[in-house]
Amino acid sequence: MSFNTFGHIFRVTTWGESHGPALGCTVDGVPPGVALAEADIQPWMDKRKPGQNKFTTQRKEPDEVRILSGVFEGVTTGTPIQLMIENTDQRSKDYGEIAQAFRPGHADITYHQKYGVRDYRGGGRSSARETAARVAAGAVARAVLARMVPGLRIAGYMVQMGVKGIDRARIDLAEVERNPFWCPDAVAAEEWAVYLDELRLSHNSVGAVIEVVAEGVPAGLGAPLYGKLDSDLASAMMSINAVKGVEIGDGMASAALTGVENADEIRMGAEGPEFLSNHAGGILGGISTGQPVVCRFAVKPTSSILTPRRTVNVKGEEIDLITKGRHDPCVGIRAVPVGEAMMACVLLDHLLLDRGQTGGVRGKIG
Amino acid sequence: MSFNTFGHIFRVTTWGESHGPALGCTVDGVPPGVALAEADIQPWMDKRKPGQNKFTTQRKEPDEVRILSGVFEGVTTGTPIQLMIENTDQRSKDYGEIAQAFRPGHADITYHQKYGVRDYRGGGRSSARETAARVAAGAVARAVLARMVPGLRIAGYMVQMGVKGIDRARIDLAEVERNPFWCPDAVAAEEWAVYLDELRLSHNSVGAVIEVVAEGVPAGLGAPLYGKLDSDLASAMMSINAVKGVEIGDGMASAALTGVENADEIRMGAEGPEFLSNHAGGILGGISTGQPVVCRFAVKPTSSILTPRRTVNVKGEEIDLITKGRHDPCVGIRAVPVGEAMMACVLLDHLLLDRGQTGGVRGKIG
Amino acid sequence: MSFNTFGHIFRVTTWGESHGPALGCTVDGVPPGVALAEADIQPWMDKRKPGQNKFTTQRKEPDEVRILSGVFEGVTTGTPIQLMIENTDQRSKDYGEIAQAFRPGHADITYHQKYGVRDYRGGGRSSARETAARVAAGAVARAVLARMVPGLRIAGYMVQMGVKGIDRARIDLAEVERNPFWCPDAVAAEEWAVYLDELRLSHNSVGAVIEVVAEGVPAGLGAPLYGKLDSDLASAMMSINAVKGVEIGDGMASAALTGVENADEIRMGAEGPEFLSNHAGGILGGISTGQPVVCRFAVKPTSSILTPRRTVNVKGEEIDLITKGRHDPCVGIRAVPVGEAMMACVLLDHLLLDRGQTGGVRGKIG
Amino acid sequence: MSFNTFGHIFRVTTWGESHGPALGCTVDGVPPGVALAEADIQPWMDKRKPGQNKFTTQRKEPDEVRILSGVFEGVTTGTPIQLMIENTDQRSKDYGEIAQAFRPGHADITYHQKYGVRDYRGGGRSSARETAARVAAGAVARAVLARMVPGLRIAGYMVQMGVKGIDRARIDLAEVERNPFWCPDAVAAEEWAVYLDELRLSHNSVGAVIEVVAEGVPAGLGAPLYGKLDSDLASAMMSINAVKGVEIGDGMASAALTGVENADEIRMGAEGPEFLSNHAGGILGGISTGQPVVCRFAVKPTSSILTPRRTVNVKGEEIDLITKGRHDPCVGIRAVPVGEAMMACVLLDHLLLDRGQTGGVRGKIG
Repeated sequence: MSFNTFGHIFRVTTWGESHGPALGCTVDGVPPGVALAEADIQPWMDKRKPGQNKFTTQRKEPDEVRILSGVFEGVTTGTPIQLMIENTDQRSKDYGEIAQAFRPGHADITYHQKYGVRDYRGGGRSSARETAARVAAGAVARAVLARMVPGLRIAGYMVQMGVKGIDRARIDLAEVERNPFWCPDAVAAEEWAVYLDELRLSHNSVGAVIEVVAEGVPAGLGAPLYGKLDSDLASAMMSINAVKGVEIGDGMASAALTGVENADEIRMGAEGPEFLSNHAGGILGGISTGQPVVCRFAVKPTSSILTPRRTVNVKGEEIDLITKGRHDPCVGIRAVPVGEAMMACVLLDHLLLDRGQTGGVRGKIG
Repeated sequence: MSFNTFGHIFRVTTWGESHGPALGCTVDGVPPGVALAEADIQPWMDKRKPGQNKFTTQRKEPDEVRILSGVFEGVTTGTPIQLMIENTDQRSKDYGEIAQAFRPGHADITYHQKYGVRDYRGGGRSSARETAARVAAGAVARAVLARMVPGLRIAGYMVQMGVKGIDRARIDLAEVERNPFWCPDAVAAEEWAVYLDELRLSHNSVGAVIEVVAEGVPAGLGAPLYGKLDSDLASAMMSINAVKGVEIGDGMASAALTGVENADEIRMGAEGPEFLSNHAGGILGGISTGQPVVCRFAVKPTSSILTPRRTVNVKGEEIDLITKGRHDPCVGIRAVPVGEAMMACVLLDHLLLDRGQTGGVRGKIG
Repeated sequence: MSFNTFGHIFRVTTWGESHGPALGCTVDGVPPGVALAEADIQPWMDKRKPGQNKFTTQRKEPDEVRILSGVFEGVTTGTPIQLMIENTDQRSKDYGEIAQAFRPGHADITYHQKYGVRDYRGGGRSSARETAARVAAGAVARAVLARMVPGLRIAGYMVQMGVKGIDRARIDLAEVERNPFWCPDAVAAEEWAVYLDELRLSHNSVGAVIEVVAEGVPAGLGAPLYGKLDSDLASAMMSINAVKGVEIGDGMASAALTGVENADEIRMGAEGPEFLSNHAGGILGGISTGQPVVCRFAVKPTSSILTPRRTVNVKGEEIDLITKGRHDPCVGIRAVPVGEAMMACVLLDHLLLDRGQTGGVRGKIG
Repeated sequence: MSFNTFGHIFRVTTWGESHGPALGCTVDGVPPGVALAEADIQPWMDKRKPGQNKFTTQRKEPDEVRILSGVFEGVTTGTPIQLMIENTDQRSKDYGEIAQAFRPGHADITYHQKYGVRDYRGGGRSSARETAARVAAGAVARAVLARMVPGLRIAGYMVQMGVKGIDRARIDLAEVERNPFWCPDAVAAEEWAVYLDELRLSHNSVGAVIEVVAEGVPAGLGAPLYGKLDSDLASAMMSINAVKGVEIGDGMASAALTGVENADEIRMGAEGPEFLSNHAGGILGGISTGQPVVCRFAVKPTSSILTPRRTVNVKGEEIDLITKGRHDPCVGIRAVPVGEAMMACVLLDHLLLDRGQTGGVRGKIG
């Protein structure tokens, strides 16, 4: 992984800024002969797109994706797939004020320091808008996975918003699509609506924790030691804007466990070994076990808020800055489909990598 | 990053198994003309090496590193540096019992499933012994960093062992070297000694959280979006054996913050902008801010324990397994120097990458 | 380098097919702050574009390039630059006949065998049309090189067409722009016009040798052993459609030299060491010497010809195939700007790589 | 490919200098379960090793290779294989004279310029001795290929030494092992012996052309456009010391062909399409056709000769330099097994890459 490309065999290169004419990605290494059309990608784009309710930015973008290459007569050809999304609602005037100032908690200052120049319109390249390209790439990965591993299912949802968690006993994946937070706990979702509304009206924002679970992942994916499945998932999730922490399985809580507690004991089931628990989150030694792959990541609160914060501008003047414009009170909401997309891309990449090195042959047990 | 290599320009390729004749790494992309000798590397090896007290495995390894290439007349030549460490205390007989069985919570089963064959002696490639090569590579990175960024300091320490944390008000880095846990809180260290002794004697083990802080990191390191400094740190730390979670700055706790709280406000100091807090852990938009880079990771408890756990063997028989041998009751202890080494490698790699792309020129403020 | 991306730090990812809606490339790793506009790229596109005279395909493409990202207020921002070129004159009907048949000497059959599916319209991804993206990327590289190494000059020209060579004593680079063959020998160019016209009218085509010379390349570029400057040049040139051989300096003729003849002797000049000859083509041990970098490559004749050739179709039927359509009688002509572009990309990539690893410091002589 | 690593999935990282304690390589991405022992590698090492007759350097090196990792109980485990070769006959005193001077035609000066420091003993890293590591890696590739593609055969031989060629009508591969030049033409080999002896006694050296042919390569290997099979072969061969040109199939001579001549016509054979000629050298559009893959490369004459040549030293003094020591009068001889090894590595890498992306499914014809 380097610069604007990620993946080893299934490789995604993204490009584009928040307020440029378009953004997109090149998806390379796609297996040939897989049915793919814009209609397979658009539903995932729609899930991420802004302006769908009062809890996300009011920017209106249709996020229509066009396939410009790599698909012929309805199937992938094995050549690079270019996916382009035009920007239509840039409204650059909103951003005039921050052209010279650095929003606290935002990449404004680091882009300026590193490059000496930055596209300040809407955050330029550092905008969450870049994640649209990831979702498009993820949709391609899903189409291939659906064919190669029919039973594989990826589900993302929010398990914490600010100080409000969920009750895991109430998790119902059917609920995820029924509330604006992709929350699997219907009771929590109602509380969150009130909570986030208060924060929004008080010109504040809040962080979140997203969980992405992949079921039906075959055992054997992952290339230790520096292409471990969890290492690549950590890199992929941490590369999403505003993410500050990544966990696999029990994650940070693993530290508090004893070895006796943490051992996922194994018995023989009808189709081979079965684990009695999944503290490991489906990954041991960087290789998938066949259990659900469980990944969580924390998204920090949106740094663009209407409450004034102390900062400086390019001239070195100390100012108080209010960030006007159309911002997400909880950018974590829109990170849910992005996390799912990154999971899909990483899993497919490792599926291909494993097939390349080992041919997919598996060691027998029993 | 792929398979057994990590890094972009400063690239480390590790090799070797726990009970093979030797292990080591090739360190490539090293700037030329930097003074380097075995004596610069050995102190870091000694810090990680096993058998130093009752809280780490009793395997005795001198972990003497030899430089086989890339250094001439005391300085690096810019060609690949091969570092080799011979294994001297393998005692393979200890491991006969687990040749056919899979330790719960261990990579035994996934290596078997993926490769169909595995070096079961001491965990083979999945052994924590591989981290010796990382520490050696990290020592090379430190030697280069010391010359390129004189003020840079990397400090790793343990902030949690099992259910026992530290009192951050008592953090004193001078304490870190004074106890066997690399604990910066002298009071906590005493408690931990009792706690870990009990666990050890009850045939159990426990997890830990390590924090690694780099001070003096220049602003501008990191290559968004898929070579973000935090993305590469996450990948690097997650690639260490037994790590299940990685955090930057406030990490998972960022989720509970509001935007008002999370904004690291900025004022002008004598030498440029200064941040009034560091929730971001020194990284914004994947690029270093000039503040301390703060990274934490959780290490799960050692899965090799003397308490019997239910599992299966290659024949598919259900068994209860006790892992005899010489194991770390808290493998997190030895992860401290490993985390430091990974931090050093990632920082140097990004220093070189940034110099390559931008020439190190920085945008002015004020 | 892998799949559709080449380069290490300065990385180019191309996409697009001959008869798709568009093609282009993502140029990543570009130093920030370099002035760049479509007008800097277009002249190089015009040099390559088809339909300019009777010696190239009659397909009419304006080859207008659009910058979709990575440039703001007239300068590069250090983020990926997306360059898109729309296809406007596809005329797919021309290609209906070869949808099911494999042109001898063409990639039709290998794409079919590898991928099981292929975009047969105009050769799809294997079309020389892909080289438009390389020329666009090369123009970006030139803009950066012009700023970083002001004296660097890249000149490409044809030194052989079919059985007709040039007289090196008559080389005059000013001639290159004056004839349709980029031939530096005015006398040869006239002969070639007659020769190629005959071939064209007899429904045949012919190969060519292109030479690309870069003057003003600083000493020290190249990363031995597997990122040698010549190794990367060989890879880059061989990746151009229809190229079958690559030479550095004396190239294949080096085999016939003795060590006494081949030694480029050195004397001290006003500004340091000077070589008395350049058999090495400016590269020793994979690293540039400061002399002109000299690279040649052979382009095979266009395989799409109006003379019937024996082949088979997808059904396995033996047929005689005539390739109708608009083809280049000597596709080597249009390879000249492509070779220049690849040279520019490789040199810039190595300039950045070298700056990254060594900081550009040079060993003194004298 | 970058710096000291080549390959995509099957990746080889070499290290070591001519006069250091040892050299070797890490071979990563090896399929698991393949029988491998030192005895499988040694014969290839012996083929390349110096001092076997008066036509190669008199340095005596047993070139015994040790497998330090990645093989367990006689089979590969899928983890990195470390191969180490100790240097035993360094005789550093021979090289004292050139510590401060730059041999014309040698990498001495460019290593000095790039790195500011160089290991002058025996050429250090730029020595042909590095190729021992390639041969070892190639032997691993051959072991895997033998299992995955049983009919695949790789044969290298010399087709030109200095001004002396061979008669292709007399090619007999059985002759290759019978003369010190790996020459397939027994008559030519006798002439060459006289010719090279004269050159050697006159304190001169000479270049050569090596041809490497792989038969039984399946159709479909190669990843256009920047991982083309021929592009990777060109890179691999050009990375060998002293190589100045690489050809595929008809190579540079393709330029003189017409499209009618160059078209490798196709008929249906018993097992599918058959080509009536092989101008393409088994590669079309960067993908293997199933015909023999034919690659040739030119090796320049050894630059270390006993005839004085004009040069300068580090102080900038103009001197006449004689290179004493034990040098190959035609270093191309020892390049034969190296070229074979590179062919094996590239083919295996592409076999794995192709299996990764496409699963090895092939488009049907007939």
